[in-house]
Amino acid sequence: MKYIQSSKNPVVKQWKKLLTKKERDLTRTYIIEGFHLVEEALKQEDTVLELILVEGIDLPQKWTVDSVSVTMVSDEVGKILADTETSQGIFAICRQREDEHDPDQAGTFMLLDGLQDPGNIGTIIRTADAAGIDMVVLGKGTVDPYNPKVLRSAQGSHFHIPIVRKELSETITALKERSIPVYGTALENGVEYTSISPQSSYALIVGNEGNGMSKELLKETDRNLYIPIYGKSESLNVAIAAGILLYHFKNGQ
Amino acid sequence: MKYIQSSKNPVVKQWKKLLTKKERDLTRTYIIEGFHLVEEALKQEDTVLELILVEGIDLPQKWTVDSVSVTMVSDEVGKILADTETSQGIFAICRQREDEHDPDQAGTFMLLDGLQDPGNIGTIIRTADAAGIDMVVLGKGTVDPYNPKVLRSAQGSHFHIPIVRKELSETITALKERSIPVYGTALENGVEYTSISPQSSYALIVGNEGNGMSKELLKETDRNLYIPIYGKSESLNVAIAAGILLYHFKNGQ
Repeated sequence: MKYIQSSKNPVVKQWKKLLTKKERDLTRTYIIEGFHLVEEALKQEDTVLELILVEGIDLPQKWTVDSVSVTMVSDEVGKILADTETSQGIFAICRQREDEHDPDQAGTFMLLDGLQDPGNIGTIIRTADAAGIDMVVLGKGTVDPYNPKVLRSAQGSHFHIPIVRKELSETITALKERSIPVYGTALENGVEYTSISPQSSYALIVGNEGNGMSKELLKETDRNLYIPIYGKSESLNVAIAAGILLYHFKNGQ
Repeated sequence: MKYIQSSKNPVVKQWKKLLTKKERDLTRTYIIEGFHLVEEALKQEDTVLELILVEGIDLPQKWTVDSVSVTMVSDEVGKILADTETSQGIFAICRQREDEHDPDQAGTFMLLDGLQDPGNIGTIIRTADAAGIDMVVLGKGTVDPYNPKVLRSAQGSHFHIPIVRKELSETITALKERSIPVYGTALENGVEYTSISPQSSYALIVGNEGNGMSKELLKETDRNLYIPIYGKSESLNVAIAAGILLYHFKNGQ
């Protein structure tokens, strides 16, 4: 097993760069942290490129890591790679596999238009996974899905459900050609979501936390839905709204 | 208008203490931050004790603050009170009003058992408000509702919906005496939530992020519900689960 002690080692500097979107995009890789995420990543073929262990941390015996390169590092290096204060001392460098996902193979889609909060995006990916959605599509202006906070809130769903980044208007055009209904979300000029029956194939779009979906995209959808507010709050959190809608579409099937 | 320049002023030290639960409990007050929260608080009678403005920040003209004491403070003091990096330079000291809320006046309840993440708690309060719930009850072990992060995620719903802290087993006993059905949530030994019809009066309990509801409470409920997982994620985020259930109970009414 390789061992790296110094945080000045060029390999460590390269890993650390993966905390930036620029480097993740350039290398088509990303870094994950913690036993749960690494375990989920290892279950996927051709995903983990490198396993990084802080000295003193043991790999669970049931894990199969024969085909993966493992590097042990000092505490000091571990601290540099950690995104959380309570790091578990285990990391993995993973390969982005977006190019392998074919939207034509999917029937249910969750589309994100300009979402900015990493926690919301991760939670929506986790919820879409739970609701059995086939693919999550992140449009322009939505935070990078390989952002460490997105990865953490998604709790491993990145390894269960295809996630792609694509221009949403192109995606909508392609969905319409396949006669898949596209539902936007809007507080104004929408229909109440319960008026739409559960669907076996559809695309749901949610929008930016403050401004909602872009006006251009709202015009391209088949219908725009709203969730009624019965109390005095002005709106629902976007991840909560996505959860209510995804489970509404699922029910009764 | 009073003016405080120095962060060493004893009044500032007292305000700053409100960032701790201990002091909030002791004084039965709390501090809020930002235009939206302060505006919602001002709409409530007998809630805002003191308005704090960083110099250079103007009060919106439409606000009525005649009956409220206003103090202007220096940038330095503002930075001390701020819980966020992007502070808007406006704060208010508010009175906790839990004692005034009478559970017997409420018919729909959201109960929180041991929730630890402030963002989840605030989001659930906001969602309960949106779903028209009458009261939120926080059991032992659940984070303080006047924690700044809870206040921020609830986006003003603290001023729309009664929030009380109370032993949940006592609450359940009182609800049963009133024949209000109490639904717990559990992945095991539960019934699928869609098998329960929408209800006009009920209590819903959600539990700790990692461990779920306590076993003791699960025994005291009328039914325990689960939300099916159709994909590969292990569970839903607790606030998402609460949103799906609250809107399920609401639908069709």
